[in-house]
Amino acid sequence: MLIVQKYGGTSVANTERISNVAKRVASYRDKGNDVIVVVSAMAGETDRLLNLAYSINKLPDEREVDVLISTGEQVTSALLAITLKTMGYDAISLLGFQVKIITDSSYTKARISRIESENIFAELKKGKVVVVPGFQGIDEQGNITTLGRGGSDTSAVALAAALKADMCEIYTDVDGVYTTDPNICEKARKIERISYEEMLEMASLGAKVLQIRSVEFAMRYNVPIHVKSSFTYGDGTIVCKEDSSMEQMKITGITYNKNEAKITINRVPDRPGTASQVFSALSDENIVVDIIVQNVSKDNYTDITFTVAKADARKAYSIMEEVAKKLGAEKVILDENIAKVSIVGLGMRSHAGVASKMFSILAKEGINIEAITTSEIKISCVIEAKYGELAVRALHSGFGLDAEEVREEK
Amino acid sequence: MLIVQKYGGTSVANTERISNVAKRVASYRDKGNDVIVVVSAMAGETDRLLNLAYSINKLPDEREVDVLISTGEQVTSALLAITLKTMGYDAISLLGFQVKIITDSSYTKARISRIESENIFAELKKGKVVVVPGFQGIDEQGNITTLGRGGSDTSAVALAAALKADMCEIYTDVDGVYTTDPNICEKARKIERISYEEMLEMASLGAKVLQIRSVEFAMRYNVPIHVKSSFTYGDGTIVCKEDSSMEQMKITGITYNKNEAKITINRVPDRPGTASQVFSALSDENIVVDIIVQNVSKDNYTDITFTVAKADARKAYSIMEEVAKKLGAEKVILDENIAKVSIVGLGMRSHAGVASKMFSILAKEGINIEAITTSEIKISCVIEAKYGELAVRALHSGFGLDAEEVREEK
Repeated sequence: MLIVQKYGGTSVANTERISNVAKRVASYRDKGNDVIVVVSAMAGETDRLLNLAYSINKLPDEREVDVLISTGEQVTSALLAITLKTMGYDAISLLGFQVKIITDSSYTKARISRIESENIFAELKKGKVVVVPGFQGIDEQGNITTLGRGGSDTSAVALAAALKADMCEIYTDVDGVYTTDPNICEKARKIERISYEEMLEMASLGAKVLQIRSVEFAMRYNVPIHVKSSFTYGDGTIVCKEDSSMEQMKITGITYNKNEAKITINRVPDRPGTASQVFSALSDENIVVDIIVQNVSKDNYTDITFTVAKADARKAYSIMEEVAKKLGAEKVILDENIAKVSIVGLGMRSHAGVASKMFSILAKEGINIEAITTSEIKISCVIEAKYGELAVRALHSGFGLDAEEVREEK
Repeated sequence: MLIVQKYGGTSVANTERISNVAKRVASYRDKGNDVIVVVSAMAGETDRLLNLAYSINKLPDEREVDVLISTGEQVTSALLAITLKTMGYDAISLLGFQVKIITDSSYTKARISRIESENIFAELKKGKVVVVPGFQGIDEQGNITTLGRGGSDTSAVALAAALKADMCEIYTDVDGVYTTDPNICEKARKIERISYEEMLEMASLGAKVLQIRSVEFAMRYNVPIHVKSSFTYGDGTIVCKEDSSMEQMKITGITYNKNEAKITINRVPDRPGTASQVFSALSDENIVVDIIVQNVSKDNYTDITFTVAKADARKAYSIMEEVAKKLGAEKVILDENIAKVSIVGLGMRSHAGVASKMFSILAKEGINIEAITTSEIKISCVIEAKYGELAVRALHSGFGLDAEEVREEK
C-alpha cells in the first residue's frame, strides 16, 4: 500500500515525540508499505518565527514571511529523516521545491495547483521513506509559498491525491472526531465514519480536528482521510464520501460555540438593499459575520440579527448604530451573553421532524431559543450562554448519541 | 558600485541588530550602489539546530543536517528583507537554490563550483537589495548543501568573484585585523592593508577574523576583502594582493596560541619511514598536528617534536608511547605548558636578520626557545606558557609595531 501520513505540531513537538513518530512510520514500513510522511513545524515554532517578523513590522512583507516560516517544517523534516536513518530505515526529506509542490503566488495563503510525483516515486522506488514538510510549496517562478494555518493537512491530502495513495492518515493530538466536545459531555462518542459534508459543518463549528480546506480538497479528489491520535494506537475517524451506513444516523454530532456575540437591529424599514448596507459596512471593516437571521417583515419593518466573534462585537455594534441611524431603524441591541448550539447530520435531509425534535429537547430543559438558522445538514440555535453545555448534553442524549459507557479518562 | 556585504552571526543576533544592519545597507543604497547582502544565522542558532540533531544521533545523516542547519541563514535573510522593506527599501531574499549557488555534494563541507548570476542581476536591475543566506548552496541534483563552519565568508567572497563586484565587505564584531591580540598587548595597531598570504598565516595562527577558506578563495579570484565592524563606522582592514607598500614593513603581525601541547619522541632510530609511522598513527585517530620539528640526527638517532591541540594531547601521548616502543625510541615527553609565538610578514623574505632579531628579543627577556619552525613569511617559536604574553609584547615593540598612542577602550 502507498500511505501518506501527516503529523501535527504537537506530535513532533520535541525529539522524543519525533522518535515516537519514527517508530510508527517504521511499523508501517515493516509491513511492506511505501510511506510518505508530511510533518508540521514543532509546536510553537511557527508562532516564534511570526513574532520575530511582527516585532519588525505588524504587516511584514508576505513573500519574506513565507521564506521565514517555511523553515519550521523544514527543521522537522530533517530531524525526522535523521531519526529514521538512525533507526536503520532509509529516509530522505524532500522540500517543496524538491518535490515539487507548485502553488499559485498568493503568499501566506497559497493554493496548490499541481504536485510533481516523479521525485517522490524515484525515492520510494529506492526503498526510502520520503519526508515532506507540510504547509510549503513554490510558485511557478520558484518563490517559496505557504498554504496558511493548518496547511499541512492540505499538503497531505494533496499529496495523497496526486500520488493516488491508498490512504491518507492525519495524526493529531485527539484520537478522532467526536459526536460533541468530550470536555462538556462525558458521553461523547468517537465517530467511526463521517462524510466530507458533515465534517465541513463540524469543523467550521468548532470541532477543530481537520483544517477545513483539507476536507474540501479531500472531497474534491475523493481521498479518504483517517484521523488518528499520534499518542495512542487504534482506529480513529474516517472522513470519506457519504455511504448508506451514514444515513441511518439522523444526527452525527453536536457542536457549540460560546465565542460569538449577537447583534440585532430592530424595526429596520424593509427596502431592497437594506441587508446589503448592513453587511457591507461590516465587511469594509474586515468583520466576519457568522450566522444571519432576517425574519419576514411586518408593516414594512423587519429585524435583522447576526453574530460576530466576541472580539469584534463592540466595533460591530458602533458601526451598526451608525448604519441604523442612516436606515431609520429603531435601535440596535448587542448581546454578548449567548451560545450557539448546532446539530449536524446527513440524516436530517431524509428524516422529517429533526428540527422540531431539537426545539422540543431544548424546551424541555427550559431553554429559550433566541434565533434559528438552518442549512441542508445543520440546524443552529442561539441560546443564552449559561445553557450552552446543558443544551449540548441534552441534544446529545436526545438524539441517541450517548456512549453506552462513559469513556475512560486519557 | 556593486558591493557584496557579509554580516556575521553576532551582527544579526536579534531584530534590533538586524535593524542596524539594514540601516547600514540603506546608507549604501542611498549613495546609488547596488548591494548584495550575505547573512549568517543569528548567533547561537546553528548550534541550537545541531544540538537537536546530536540529541538524536552523534553522527546524524549529513544530507539531512544540511537541510536542518541551512534554515538558520534562511531565517535571517527573510528578517533582513522584511526590515529593509519596512524602511522603504525594496529587497528580496534569494536562497541557495534560487540564486543558484552550485556546490559539490560533500554535505556539511561542500565547495562552491559555480554561481549563476542571472537571477541576482535581474533583481538588482529592478532596484532591489538582494539578501542571500550565507553558508548554503545546492548540488547539481538540487540537494541542499552547506559549506562548513564560517562558510558565510566564503559565500560572500564567491558571490563577489562571480558577480565581479567592486568590493566585498565582511562585517564582524571586531573592527579589523590587528598586529596582535589587543587583549594582551594594548599597543596593538589595526592593520590598514594586509596581503592574502599574510592573512592566511595570521588566521591559521589564531587571529580568527576571516575564515581561512574565504581568504584562499579571495586570493584565487583576486577579490579584495574589506573587514569591518558592524558596530562602528570607519575603515577596517583591507585584505588584498600584496603591493609595494606592504614590503616596507618587515613584520605585519604577531600571533600566539596557548591551546597546544608539545610532544617529543627522544632518540628515535633514524630510518626511512620513521616520521611516516609517527604521523600516520596520529592521523588514523583524526588528530591534527600543527608544527613539526625534526632536527638532524646524531649517531643515527633523532628527536621528533610536534604540537597538537591540548584536547588531543593525552590521546596523542598514549599513541606515541605505542609507536615509540615499536620504533625502539628512548622515551616520549608530553609538555602541556607551552605557548607558540609567531611573527608574520612578507617583509622577512627580503630582509635578512629577522629571525635572529626575533630570537634576540626573546633572549633579552630571558625567554628560552624550546622549538623553532619557519616558513617563507612566518617564524614560530615554542616557549614556556607563562612567557606567552610577555613574548608577544616584546616582539610587538621590538619590531616597531607599537601604536604611538594607546588606543581607547571600545
